[in-house]
Amino acid sequence: MTRYDRLFGQAIERLHAEGRYRVFIDILRNKGMFPNARCFAGHNGPKPITVWCSNDYLAMGQHPKVIAAMEEALHDVGAGSGGTRNIGGNTHYHVDLEAELADLHGKEGALLFTSGYVSNDATLSTLAKILPGCVIFSDELNHASMIAGIRNSGAEKQVWRHNDVAHLEELLAAADPEVPKLIAFESVYSMDGDVAPIHAICDLADKYNALTYIDEVHAVGMYGPRGGGISDRDEAAHRITIIEGTLGKAFGVMGGYIAADSRIIDVIRSYAPGFIFTTSLSPVLVAGVLASVRHLKESSVEREGQQAAAAILKAMFRDAGLPVMPSTTHIVPLMVGDPVKAKRISDILLAEYGVYVQPINFPTVPRGTERLRFTPGPAHSEAMMRELTAALVEIWERTAKRLAA
Amino acid sequence: MTRYDRLFGQAIERLHAEGRYRVFIDILRNKGMFPNARCFAGHNGPKPITVWCSNDYLAMGQHPKVIAAMEEALHDVGAGSGGTRNIGGNTHYHVDLEAELADLHGKEGALLFTSGYVSNDATLSTLAKILPGCVIFSDELNHASMIAGIRNSGAEKQVWRHNDVAHLEELLAAADPEVPKLIAFESVYSMDGDVAPIHAICDLADKYNALTYIDEVHAVGMYGPRGGGISDRDEAAHRITIIEGTLGKAFGVMGGYIAADSRIIDVIRSYAPGFIFTTSLSPVLVAGVLASVRHLKESSVEREGQQAAAAILKAMFRDAGLPVMPSTTHIVPLMVGDPVKAKRISDILLAEYGVYVQPINFPTVPRGTERLRFTPGPAHSEAMMRELTAALVEIWERTAKRLAA
Ligand SMILES: Cc1ncc(COP(=O)(O)O)c(C=O)c1O
Ligand SMILES: Cc1ncc(COP(=O)(O)O)c(C=O)c1O
Repeated sequence: MTRYDRLFGQAIERLHAEGRYRVFIDILRNKGMFPNARCFAGHNGPKPITVWCSNDYLAMGQHPKVIAAMEEALHDVGAGSGGTRNIGGNTHYHVDLEAELADLHGKEGALLFTSGYVSNDATLSTLAKILPGCVIFSDELNHASMIAGIRNSGAEKQVWRHNDVAHLEELLAAADPEVPKLIAFESVYSMDGDVAPIHAICDLADKYNALTYIDEVHAVGMYGPRGGGISDRDEAAHRITIIEGTLGKAFGVMGGYIAADSRIIDVIRSYAPGFIFTTSLSPVLVAGVLASVRHLKESSVEREGQQAAAAILKAMFRDAGLPVMPSTTHIVPLMVGDPVKAKRISDILLAEYGVYVQPINFPTVPRGTERLRFTPGPAHSEAMMRELTAALVEIWERTAKRLAA
Repeated sequence: MTRYDRLFGQAIERLHAEGRYRVFIDILRNKGMFPNARCFAGHNGPKPITVWCSNDYLAMGQHPKVIAAMEEALHDVGAGSGGTRNIGGNTHYHVDLEAELADLHGKEGALLFTSGYVSNDATLSTLAKILPGCVIFSDELNHASMIAGIRNSGAEKQVWRHNDVAHLEELLAAADPEVPKLIAFESVYSMDGDVAPIHAICDLADKYNALTYIDEVHAVGMYGPRGGGISDRDEAAHRITIIEGTLGKAFGVMGGYIAADSRIIDVIRSYAPGFIFTTSLSPVLVAGVLASVRHLKESSVEREGQQAAAAILKAMFRDAGLPVMPSTTHIVPLMVGDPVKAKRISDILLAEYGVYVQPINFPTVPRGTERLRFTPGPAHSEAMMRELTAALVEIWERTAKRLAA
């Protein structure tokens, strides 16, 4: 086995050499007191920390309605679904949630997956197989799960420069008018916090007869009057062929989905191995998501609280001279530009300040753009933000000194 | 859009034409009374049914310890993890469960995924990329998720005839001795109920210096003194490089995992997109699985009850002259051999007898081997089995008459 061991060892060595070997921070959140949590790093028992990098953007994971719905389902039907959607695992909760999500996006149907990752991978890889010769036009910053789906489809891929519709048009115009086309992009890009020009992209889709696929993972629940995402806010949902989202970020639970016209839903439901051959989402999760989606359709308090928190934190960072990136959304990234330094800042924050923010490095972001990414939400107070800003200023100075020395 | 509509429409038409368009049966299980459930098909409100096709093999999805652990986690930490394992979603439950699963299989480490499907897809596709030139030797009846992982790895695949070690050896002997090799197979094949000759396969792996990968999805929790699967029962776990399992069948909840030596775990953890770029399992689920795995390590009552139920049902079917397939495990398949007939029998069972068993057709099983697949468990009584057998005999006669007429 030594030959295999050597290859595995080398793979790990490469990560250490680049300073991007990942250490998972072991935590437990305190329900009802988020962003407070307990951290199990070190040896003196769990220590209290403040979480600044959760994607439970609206703290729905601790919302009383969500908790109550999950508890009820747990006692009514039990822990798991016990089967795939086709074989014993199609519960009434699943059916209801799909109707709710279809309605959220103004589509005829929706389809649940075990995660947002799987919804992207399964849908994109299957779509392109149903459309012979299909060419997929993919934004260069698309998420790993979309890239996986596109690669696994075996379809030809054309990558357009990030959010650059002129470049997209160039590629569309150069393609064979007769082949099926799919434009795949995100609404909110989660590591930079910028937003796609949805209408301009849909104009091109109309002009070149292409289907459109949007990943709204970082926007569902958070934008639009009912939380339908940026396509809801921009009144563009009806122009998009397939809207994809997650149930694990703003909705606070876990799972993923697509919404589209019923024929497309039927095709993916019937042909996608990643949908067919897997135990369906636990009904306990689905019940929680149902409560979360229904609540956020009617309540904008959480959305407004989050937007306000993000605006305040960005202003504090800017005023303090910290290198905050030009995000137009709820995401607040600070550029560091080096994996070792990003990890050091994050380590100091955790050890000395009880602040948990994970360093973001390759392959999540391109090399040389390593950063810290903050996700303030309605539960982060201004006092917390002031403490955070002061800590960062102190550490930034300390690290600059060390580099100068 | 009409061109796209036509292609999507044709894809659906093909399914109708072959009689394998799938209709999901909409149910809710009754916790504490499983296999009883409510069925929402038809128009007169939910009707009581008995579920005969659940993969919650040991009814752990309603076990009081599992329910209590999930309820506690729900109230302690909330609904979801809020992040990927690397970014905020690594809870203490995850860390504990990985240790518990590593111990279950006598391995140094384990790694959780959002499903068994994802664990197969992510691990196999990543492994082969870390081992340049790797050839994967795959049993011809391997599950769709393994097939996906192998295909997505881009590695060369050699398919050996089902459970045929002579054929496997032929292929191994013909391969370049210098290239890395991986033998991928299942322990219990879930649609036929037969078992792989693990030791014979490991002998070949030793002889030809190949790694081994076993899918124990339909065996973990159910075989071996502690529920470590067929590799536990056969004392072969130490001979296998990677053991893969699900948390959604015998353990009764949802999720998947692998167990292996710590270096391999570290490689998959660090390189597999399907592990890295997705929200981690909800801590509520993980807490439930922890209770389930711990319970089944110590209790054999459920395993024995299930084996007894399967033996009784097989005997009843055989005595009644029903075409029961030669399964050596807990799975009880009845061969039908035609998708339309399989669906008709299943429809009659549900409508007239309140018995829910899903017809199994292509692509889950090869065309021409369509079947009904029963999974009796410790909660199915002998009286239920007698009623089921009588119903099947009646329907089988009815269908034979109709075909003769
Ligand atoms: C843009 C984007 N798409 C999809 C996903 C996957 O969603 P999920 O976490 O539900 O698997 C993520 C992150 O996890 C993401 O950032
Ligand atoms: C052999 C086998 N492997 C893997 C899986 C996938 O496991 P999960 O349901 O946890 O995704 C299944 C069925 O679902 C299976 O039958």
